[in-house]
Amino acid sequence: MKRRLIIGVMGGGIASTENADMAYRLGCSIAKEGWILLNGGRNAGIMEASAKGAIDQGGLTIGIVPDDNDRQVSKYIEIPILTGMGHARNCINVLSSNVVVACPGGAGTVSEIALALKNRRPVILCNFFIEKLFDAYIDQGILHHARTPEEVIEIIKRLVER
Amino acid sequence: MKRRLIIGVMGGGIASTENADMAYRLGCSIAKEGWILLNGGRNAGIMEASAKGAIDQGGLTIGIVPDDNDRQVSKYIEIPILTGMGHARNCINVLSSNVVVACPGGAGTVSEIALALKNRRPVILCNFFIEKLFDAYIDQGILHHARTPEEVIEIIKRLVER
Amino acid sequence: MKRRLIIGVMGGGIASTENADMAYRLGCSIAKEGWILLNGGRNAGIMEASAKGAIDQGGLTIGIVPDDNDRQVSKYIEIPILTGMGHARNCINVLSSNVVVACPGGAGTVSEIALALKNRRPVILCNFFIEKLFDAYIDQGILHHARTPEEVIEIIKRLVER
Amino acid sequence: MKRRLIIGVMGGGIASTENADMAYRLGCSIAKEGWILLNGGRNAGIMEASAKGAIDQGGLTIGIVPDDNDRQVSKYIEIPILTGMGHARNCINVLSSNVVVACPGGAGTVSEIALALKNRRPVILCNFFIEKLFDAYIDQGILHHARTPEEVIEIIKRLVER
Repeated sequence: MKRRLIIGVMGGGIASTENADMAYRLGCSIAKEGWILLNGGRNAGIMEASAKGAIDQGGLTIGIVPDDNDRQVSKYIEIPILTGMGHARNCINVLSSNVVVACPGGAGTVSEIALALKNRRPVILCNFFIEKLFDAYIDQGILHHARTPEEVIEIIKRLVER
Repeated sequence: MKRRLIIGVMGGGIASTENADMAYRLGCSIAKEGWILLNGGRNAGIMEASAKGAIDQGGLTIGIVPDDNDRQVSKYIEIPILTGMGHARNCINVLSSNVVVACPGGAGTVSEIALALKNRRPVILCNFFIEKLFDAYIDQGILHHARTPEEVIEIIKRLVER
Repeated sequence: MKRRLIIGVMGGGIASTENADMAYRLGCSIAKEGWILLNGGRNAGIMEASAKGAIDQGGLTIGIVPDDNDRQVSKYIEIPILTGMGHARNCINVLSSNVVVACPGGAGTVSEIALALKNRRPVILCNFFIEKLFDAYIDQGILHHARTPEEVIEIIKRLVER
Repeated sequence: MKRRLIIGVMGGGIASTENADMAYRLGCSIAKEGWILLNGGRNAGIMEASAKGAIDQGGLTIGIVPDDNDRQVSKYIEIPILTGMGHARNCINVLSSNVVVACPGGAGTVSEIALALKNRRPVILCNFFIEKLFDAYIDQGILHHARTPEEVIEIIKRLVER
C-alpha cells in the first residue's frame, strides 16, 4: 500500500480575508492532487479555510486538535485527533506532515515552522515573510518560499520527486 | 458533514495467533460498517492484525505512532500520526476514539483502558479479562464485555444510538 | 554530584481520611530520608496529603501538573511543573520517578501503575489492592506490596541497594 | 509557603565559548538571587553551561529532558524530569518558567521563544537577535532585550515587582 502524501497547513487562528482566501485555494489544490490535508483542527482562521477548501474538492482532512473534546473542531475536519495537549500538539502537526506549508500567522505558526525545521521536515512559507530568521535552512533545501498556492504545489511536487 | 465513527482498537504488541485472528476479524467488521479504525500504528501484534483486517475490507486506518519516524509503522496504516511521545500517545489514542475496544494485551493496554475510562470514553473488552478492577464502570454503562468481534459491533451500535 | 532519589507518590484525587493520613505519613517518611517527593501536583486527595507530609518534614516537593496554569496546584508543592497536557502527564510522573508508590486511587492511578510497569519503573502498591492484574511483574521484582509507609521505605531502600 | 521563582534558560545545544560563558554567568546570577534554574536538561551547550553556573553557586537546577532515560542528562542537573516526548517538552519548559531567558540558539530555541510568547510568558532575549519577528510583543511588555546576565537579572526583578 502506497500512502498518500500528508500536507500540513499551518497559519493563524485569526486570518485576513485575503489570507483565508489563499488558504482556501491551497486546501482545494492539495485535495485535487489527491493529498491529505492536516492542520490544527480548529474552526478558525487558516485552519477552517484550508479544511473547507479540501472538503469542497472531495479531499480528506485531519485536524490535530489541542483540546480533549471536539467543541471547537472545524466542521470541515473529517478526522479530529484529540490530543488534550495544548500547544504540545504543534510537534505532532509537523512530525506527521510530509511537507509543512506555513501561511501567515503569529507566534504559534512560527513555533511550528521552527519545530518542523528542527525535525528536518521541509517547510514552504506561503506568502509569509519571517525575515532572515531561518535563512540557513534555505541553503539546505529545507525551507522554501512561495507566493501562491500554485507555487506551493509545484514545490511539493519537486520535493517529492527527490 | 457527518463524521464517520472512529473506533480505537487497543491490544498487545505481542499477540497469540488466536488473538491476532480475532483482531483481524474485528478490523474487517469495523471497516464493513464504514467506521474508521484507529490504533497504535506499529507493525506488530493486535495493531498490525486489526489494521490489516480493515484494509482488506477497504477501510480507513489511522495509527497514532509513539515514534517520531515511520520505521516501525504497519504497512496497513494509511495515515500515520507521528507523535514522538512514546506512551504519552496512549492518551491521544483514547481521546480520539468514539469507542475504545481492548483486545488482550499487557500493561500498555491496561493503561489505555484506564485512561479511556478516566476520560469517560466507552470501552469494550473483547475477550480480555481484567478481573474486577474497573467493575464500577460496568454499572455506569461505560465498560462492556464482548467475546467476539460480532458482539463488539453490536455493542458499538447500541452505544451510538443512545 | 550525586542526585537525590525522586519518589513518585500516586493516588486518588479523592481520598478517604484514612488513606490521606497514610499518604501524609508517607510524605513525611520520604522527606526524612532526604528523598524528593514527586506527585501530580493538585490540591486534592493523595497529592495534597503526601506533599503536606513532605513539606512538614522540610522536604522538597515537585508537582507534575496537568494544567497550563497553577490555579489548582497544592500549596505544598514547591516546584510546579506545568505541562498543559492533561493525563499525558501521567507518563512524565512515572518516567521521572526512581520508584513509584501507588496509594489507593481510581482509573488515573491504575494508568500510572500500568505506565510505570511498562517502562520498567519499580512500583510499590501501598495498601492498594488491584487483584492479580499485574502479578507477572511481582515475579520479576518490579511490583511490590506494602501495608504501611514504613514498609514502603524499607522496600525502597532494598531496591536502591541493588 | 512562598514559591521560589523558576527561571527558564533556553539556548542552543551547541554554543560558542563566548555564549557558553555568558550562560554560565547567567546560571550563577540566577542562583545567587535564590531562584531556581530550569532548562532542557541535556549535557550540551547552553543547557550544560547554565546548569553548571547555578550549581557552582549552590543553586537548584531542574532539567526537562526530551528523553525517557537519563543518559544524556547534564551532571549539573539535580532534578531531571524525564518526559520521553522529544521537542514536545519545549512547551513544558516555557509553561513551567515564571520568566524565560533565551540565549543564542537555533530553531529549537526559536520554537521555545514562540511558545512562551503564545502562552504570554515573559521572554528576555540575552544577546540573541532574532530580527523583528516578534516585535509586537515588545510593545506589550512581554518581550525584552538584554546584553548581559546582569541586565537579565534587572529585568526579571522589574517583571516580578509588577
